[in-house]
Amino acid sequence: MRPIPARRDTYSVFIPLDLRWNDVDIYGHVNNAVYFQLFDTAINNWLIANSLFQKDDAPQCLVARHACDFFREVKMTDRVVIGLGIKKLGGSSITYAPALFVNEDETAAAQGDYIHVAVDRATHRPIIISDEVRSVLERLSGSSV
Amino acid sequence: MRPIPARRDTYSVFIPLDLRWNDVDIYGHVNNAVYFQLFDTAINNWLIANSLFQKDDAPQCLVARHACDFFREVKMTDRVVIGLGIKKLGGSSITYAPALFVNEDETAAAQGDYIHVAVDRATHRPIIISDEVRSVLERLSGSSV
Amino acid sequence: MRPIPARRDTYSVFIPLDLRWNDVDIYGHVNNAVYFQLFDTAINNWLIANSLFQKDDAPQCLVARHACDFFREVKMTDRVVIGLGIKKLGGSSITYAPALFVNEDETAAAQGDYIHVAVDRATHRPIIISDEVRSVLERLSGSSV
Amino acid sequence: MRPIPARRDTYSVFIPLDLRWNDVDIYGHVNNAVYFQLFDTAINNWLIANSLFQKDDAPQCLVARHACDFFREVKMTDRVVIGLGIKKLGGSSITYAPALFVNEDETAAAQGDYIHVAVDRATHRPIIISDEVRSVLERLSGSSV
Repeated sequence: MRPIPARRDTYSVFIPLDLRWNDVDIYGHVNNAVYFQLFDTAINNWLIANSLFQKDDAPQCLVARHACDFFREVKMTDRVVIGLGIKKLGGSSITYAPALFVNEDETAAAQGDYIHVAVDRATHRPIIISDEVRSVLERLSGSSV
Repeated sequence: MRPIPARRDTYSVFIPLDLRWNDVDIYGHVNNAVYFQLFDTAINNWLIANSLFQKDDAPQCLVARHACDFFREVKMTDRVVIGLGIKKLGGSSITYAPALFVNEDETAAAQGDYIHVAVDRATHRPIIISDEVRSVLERLSGSSV
Repeated sequence: MRPIPARRDTYSVFIPLDLRWNDVDIYGHVNNAVYFQLFDTAINNWLIANSLFQKDDAPQCLVARHACDFFREVKMTDRVVIGLGIKKLGGSSITYAPALFVNEDETAAAQGDYIHVAVDRATHRPIIISDEVRSVLERLSGSSV
Repeated sequence: MRPIPARRDTYSVFIPLDLRWNDVDIYGHVNNAVYFQLFDTAINNWLIANSLFQKDDAPQCLVARHACDFFREVKMTDRVVIGLGIKKLGGSSITYAPALFVNEDETAAAQGDYIHVAVDRATHRPIIISDEVRSVLERLSGSSV
């Protein structure tokens, strides 16, 4: 079952990211592996901007799953923004639904599925996300992803 | 539902790949986005070695989906091989199930889901994979993935 | 002989570029190989924005040399701009002097030396850069690099 | 002054490295920024294999300069080895002269200039390389680079 591209108006948080010359492969389009760098960066930038999981005694977030469906090819000269939403907030896991939009397009060129698991920095065992952190993460849950 | 790591003995084709110094991120482990470069390389290396989709009048393969579940962290000094299998061969699509094994481990440190769609090089519209190509691809279907 | 970091006020063209999460290596700073992606991108973005070497019958530019001196470590959260200048314009070669500035710093954190050779797209033999192209490139020669 | 490509027989240490699908850019050749990943990896692999600068109380090596001259284009299907030599061993700095050879070529397709400065892990101030480490590094000085 092929997923349906997300609409831009279902997102409220957008993070613009530059493409790089070497992102493009022999086919003249952005290589599939690059999208994961972009989603990873958008999510971590948002966490940093919101001071989540940054302190030395805070949990560390490990990526348990990362997936992307590709709908349209992207060119080096396209302007890219990542729409950021959370579709599931578990006890120690966060499932993000990032989507990549180009130029003025209303629907996503690609969309992802990204699971962070909060772990103890020393033992790397999952730990429960605090209510304080949870309340900040919920700002990304408003969108209808 | 968390997937179960694949066993090494369910694969018959293995492609060793080197890690690079900059594959490792601030956490001292291979960054999640790097696995997609490795799966992409293993699949394309196998296609090149088997002379599939290489000629100018052959179909081009576009990546429609790429996903990875991460089970164990990988270090720069780990030896990596990609196990390569095909789990579904459609009319114009090929679903690969690559898995990344480290050192002597019997189970995968990470495993992927990778869909190629064969398209016409000019129009980028899907086209049917020929029986000749299909018979070569079936060499990767023997494993019980 | 260690070079002296360039001053920001010797540049007149600046191209801001985003860092990515995976740019940072195990030492917590941007990996040295990433700077070359940034210089490469800044130069190509400027050429694209100025419609140089973009047409199918225009020369292609091959990189003959790329070098970087590193003066200060850069963090993922630093804001980066590339200062762009040309220090030598030969018959078929262009020597750029890109420099990377972070945040409000007056002197470069790193600076490069980048030689493009204009070649025929078919033969890859050097060809003379036209006066028309040369006059546009000279906009980057104003700075005292 | 254009450098002359190094000959393979001037090197005695060789480190083979795999290319990746996304190393190739729109021109169908390995992108210039990739060579720096390869040199960086070859040097660090050799240091790890020789147990140099690996312990927690050993100096850390910062890259002060990295440069590459490109002589011939490299394709995804070329077999690559990095020839590794040291051309200057200073008090706290090491200047490597890595060269990239493809297939059976006798002369380098590209060659680098790479300066490591040994620093204290805490202060990042240069420190003198010990005689013990120096004697191991001298194994790379035998070549006539």
